[in-house]
Amino acid sequence: MTIHDLETPALLVDLDIMERNLARVAGYAREHGLRLRPHTKTHKTPELGRRQVALGAAGLAVAKVGEAEVMLESGTPDLLVAYPVCGASKLRRLGEVARRTRVTVAVDSLEVARPLSASAQEARVEIGVLAEADVGLARVGVRPGAELDALIDGLRALPALRWEGVTFYPGHIKKMDGQGLETLEQVARLVGDALDHLHSTRRAPAIVSGGSTPTLFHSHRVRGVTEIRPGTYIFNDRNTVSTGACTWDDCAAALLCTVVSSAVAGQMILDGGSKTFFSDRLSCDDDGCYGRVVEAPEARFFKMNEEHGYVALSEAAGRFGVGDRVRVIPNHICVAVNLHERMYGIRGESVEVVWEVKGRGKLQ
Amino acid sequence: MTIHDLETPALLVDLDIMERNLARVAGYAREHGLRLRPHTKTHKTPELGRRQVALGAAGLAVAKVGEAEVMLESGTPDLLVAYPVCGASKLRRLGEVARRTRVTVAVDSLEVARPLSASAQEARVEIGVLAEADVGLARVGVRPGAELDALIDGLRALPALRWEGVTFYPGHIKKMDGQGLETLEQVARLVGDALDHLHSTRRAPAIVSGGSTPTLFHSHRVRGVTEIRPGTYIFNDRNTVSTGACTWDDCAAALLCTVVSSAVAGQMILDGGSKTFFSDRLSCDDDGCYGRVVEAPEARFFKMNEEHGYVALSEAAGRFGVGDRVRVIPNHICVAVNLHERMYGIRGESVEVVWEVKGRGKLQ
Repeated sequence: MTIHDLETPALLVDLDIMERNLARVAGYAREHGLRLRPHTKTHKTPELGRRQVALGAAGLAVAKVGEAEVMLESGTPDLLVAYPVCGASKLRRLGEVARRTRVTVAVDSLEVARPLSASAQEARVEIGVLAEADVGLARVGVRPGAELDALIDGLRALPALRWEGVTFYPGHIKKMDGQGLETLEQVARLVGDALDHLHSTRRAPAIVSGGSTPTLFHSHRVRGVTEIRPGTYIFNDRNTVSTGACTWDDCAAALLCTVVSSAVAGQMILDGGSKTFFSDRLSCDDDGCYGRVVEAPEARFFKMNEEHGYVALSEAAGRFGVGDRVRVIPNHICVAVNLHERMYGIRGESVEVVWEVKGRGKLQ
Repeated sequence: MTIHDLETPALLVDLDIMERNLARVAGYAREHGLRLRPHTKTHKTPELGRRQVALGAAGLAVAKVGEAEVMLESGTPDLLVAYPVCGASKLRRLGEVARRTRVTVAVDSLEVARPLSASAQEARVEIGVLAEADVGLARVGVRPGAELDALIDGLRALPALRWEGVTFYPGHIKKMDGQGLETLEQVARLVGDALDHLHSTRRAPAIVSGGSTPTLFHSHRVRGVTEIRPGTYIFNDRNTVSTGACTWDDCAAALLCTVVSSAVAGQMILDGGSKTFFSDRLSCDDDGCYGRVVEAPEARFFKMNEEHGYVALSEAAGRFGVGDRVRVIPNHICVAVNLHERMYGIRGESVEVVWEVKGRGKLQ
């Protein structure tokens, strides 16, 4: 099968680029002695989780229990649920997962930890916990100092839970320019001070889990960090390029689309809109565009409806007719993958493997 | 089962409101002698298509062949594929659908129509076609006048195609305020002139298919329109309210979410983010919010990541703790439904029916 046999829109993954991306980050982690726990939200596919583990990942990260259930199939020795698990039914399902592999949950309150402890006792399993600290994103996480101390002390006292350390996410750093580096230095100071305090008060964490895509290759600069949880690096996207963390040549995933109308002058309509690409704008340096047309990088993908992608063509972009196909690198690959039932792994024009996106739509 | 038994995030549909919405639009169409071909992109669920047909719809509309395949299960006597179908494999599948029910396709070029004709001949079926005209959205559709004449003449000459009329979509009208009404009047003049011309040149269309959600209840003001294709009216959403086409009491669908963190003061984090709600902003009067919290309408749902919804709570909004549940009406229900595996039809707190969203993710 070749890409010409595929119906569009189709999600293509260039295997050569993907394998290079996987090897690069595995090498970076090894070089700096960092544990690698890739977040699988980007690919949502057990076969790809298996590859990450084979390349040396200590475990895999997921957000939801439903994703953990799917990711068991990867054979990972360790699963981090990087999200507060709430509700009796989900806790029962988590207990089942914990019977089959080592499980750790990130929590930022004892309101979440107490039912987790009770449910682990009932399921006769031990579940690891990381105390989540806020380092500036203001999303989840308690403040380092008295709040973090109290959370850790509470976690240590709860039965059937294994306190493993702390986790944080510098998701407010969008770009590794001068300002991004400065913000990273602030985060590093905050984390360093917090760790000094924890060590001096007999709360030394075994694991200090950090990292985000823009800051990925700067993780070793944050003293005390022992683990990183990058996700997007397997495919990369327009966001990753715009943050400076990779180049266009590192973008493994693209949407293959067909031109379905050229009735409006200077414009082509693709058969992929927000239902194919998602409608996220660039997270930094938003240029109002929804993707990069590989065959016409200067074209502007300026608007979407659910099934229509509007691309403005300058003279330089050449002319495309109804039935022509183009590849488009999306703004945010994780949310795009979630919209697709399958991905096509290609080398050149040959389709080498078809993956079912088994973890898509797992909201609970 | 009650809503308290559901894991969150869960997509709830209030059946009383939905049934009122269905009846209102069926009544409007009947009153004005308009054919009703509801677009099923909003619910993507054959059981709901069946209800629309039972209430008098002449047929159902879909965007993609995959949706047409799913919607056959509704037992509809007629399917409009309101999208140019391109590619040999899709045309073969469309031929299969056309063996099982009456099929019509909207086209705006002979480049799309010729392979459609060839494939219909091969499948020994007849397929209806509507010529798509652009009335201001500048998406698909040819200009009324010489371009539309040439398209219609071409369609009439192609074997195995049955030319049925014209279609247009005034999707550039976002709000029925003074300006929206003025734009609708321009569209009405354009359509009226185009129809006069078609009638005088022996190209009288049997079907004139128009309408969009904001303009829904004004469709009878556009002289010559014989058919409407509304979708969102079954559930409605923040967009529909903001355009003035309905009130909050007409919003049937909401996302049930759980508060998973209240670590940051003045804010709660919900277990639904862009993977639950989609990231579309309001299409008019964008207020930067992603949903209306039913239990705290003055709260601001101001930010999302994939799994996190950030809600700012004023003092008036009261206090929510970890584990509390709220209902949120999304900006755009069609794209939200596409993210969910199932919908829960409720009356009061009782879950009366569970629908699998069989048409979700049908991109091809």
